[in-house]
Amino acid sequence: MTFPRPLVTVDVAMFTVLDDALQVLLVKRAADSNEPFPGKWALPGGFINTDEDASLLDCALRKLREKTGVVTPYLEQLGSWGGAQRDPRGWSATHCFYALIPAQAMQLRSGANAAEVAWFEVDAAMRKRLAFDHGELLEAAVARLRSKVEYTSLPAFLLEEPFTLPSLQHAYEVVLGRDIDKSAFRKRMLDGGFMEEAGMVAGSLGRPAMGYRLRDRSQAALFPRTFNAR
Amino acid sequence: MTFPRPLVTVDVAMFTVLDDALQVLLVKRAADSNEPFPGKWALPGGFINTDEDASLLDCALRKLREKTGVVTPYLEQLGSWGGAQRDPRGWSATHCFYALIPAQAMQLRSGANAAEVAWFEVDAAMRKRLAFDHGELLEAAVARLRSKVEYTSLPAFLLEEPFTLPSLQHAYEVVLGRDIDKSAFRKRMLDGGFMEEAGMVAGSLGRPAMGYRLRDRSQAALFPRTFNAR
Repeated sequence: MTFPRPLVTVDVAMFTVLDDALQVLLVKRAADSNEPFPGKWALPGGFINTDEDASLLDCALRKLREKTGVVTPYLEQLGSWGGAQRDPRGWSATHCFYALIPAQAMQLRSGANAAEVAWFEVDAAMRKRLAFDHGELLEAAVARLRSKVEYTSLPAFLLEEPFTLPSLQHAYEVVLGRDIDKSAFRKRMLDGGFMEEAGMVAGSLGRPAMGYRLRDRSQAALFPRTFNAR
Repeated sequence: MTFPRPLVTVDVAMFTVLDDALQVLLVKRAADSNEPFPGKWALPGGFINTDEDASLLDCALRKLREKTGVVTPYLEQLGSWGGAQRDPRGWSATHCFYALIPAQAMQLRSGANAAEVAWFEVDAAMRKRLAFDHGELLEAAVARLRSKVEYTSLPAFLLEEPFTLPSLQHAYEVVLGRDIDKSAFRKRMLDGGFMEEAGMVAGSLGRPAMGYRLRDRSQAALFPRTFNAR
């Protein structure tokens, strides 16, 4: 080992849909500390605890649990960022994950310590000067999420089960930031085979509607291949 | 800093198409050393040099340059793997990238030190017991590559320019491991707008064919959106 070891952290961009908007959880850093970026908002995260965390994923799950109480969200690695300049304490690398949480689950905790942990609409969050390179991390997380929504069932993980097709379409539209065609959407979801019927529930205006749940909460479904076989 | 710092490495899965097969570059670890996994094949990589590497990407480019001489390949981060068990020397995290290199560029170097650096067909490479968790990294890199090929121009980065449409289709088919429909393929590529004509070249059987080059070698083009707007 001829080189010093970099600092290693894990950060998590946690998303939900609330008030018809895609929102992200931010944490305010202590104002009166010797740590960098005092008083700035940041993504939740911190150093790996090499005694406690068996893996990067374990560390991300711990951060999520500590901030939201959510134990089994959709969680996926976004990537890693590292370099000599991103932390004034020295060469550092962070492993960034993103998580999708149903609004009902997250509301349980959002009021607990509102001065230091809060949900922000992603557009508002991206206009803030976040600590470290967290603005860049957040931008990448939103881009990844919007990109994957085009060809996966990802928005279903933002909903409590059972959910209706109109509520699923609404989640897609909120994440994409645009309206989508209803009949093509319904066909695609029902053909996708990733959900199953869960009985009638109260839909919009209280009318009965079919409720659905995911067949597999461990991963998002991919929609069909785009190249036709010969 | 209450916890020890993990070991931090960068590894690169370098791919090319050669002999009608997708191939990956592997490096044989020294047999007579105190380092872990002596004599095993591994992805090229190693510790970050905090004095020399300004960023993770810089480190990946350095590894690539050192092994292949290629300076401007397609290079993208795959993700990071970290945990207490993956390296016998202690808690470690690796940042894994993958690169696409035209066969012509790589042939310049493949003979230089064949006993210690060699190209393997990916299926053969995946059957080896690679050092560390590199089998898992390679599997993830191949999966990512095949997945992205369905909706991006990525295989074009495996070709020297100018390339013909049949050679581009061949690169898609080799990466995907299946034949694809020719007329739909041509339409999709030409509608994609990511390449431009570069004059007539010698095609198959020496017949003249249109040559193409990428408009932008810095990123892969995404094919059109999959959700129709309302």
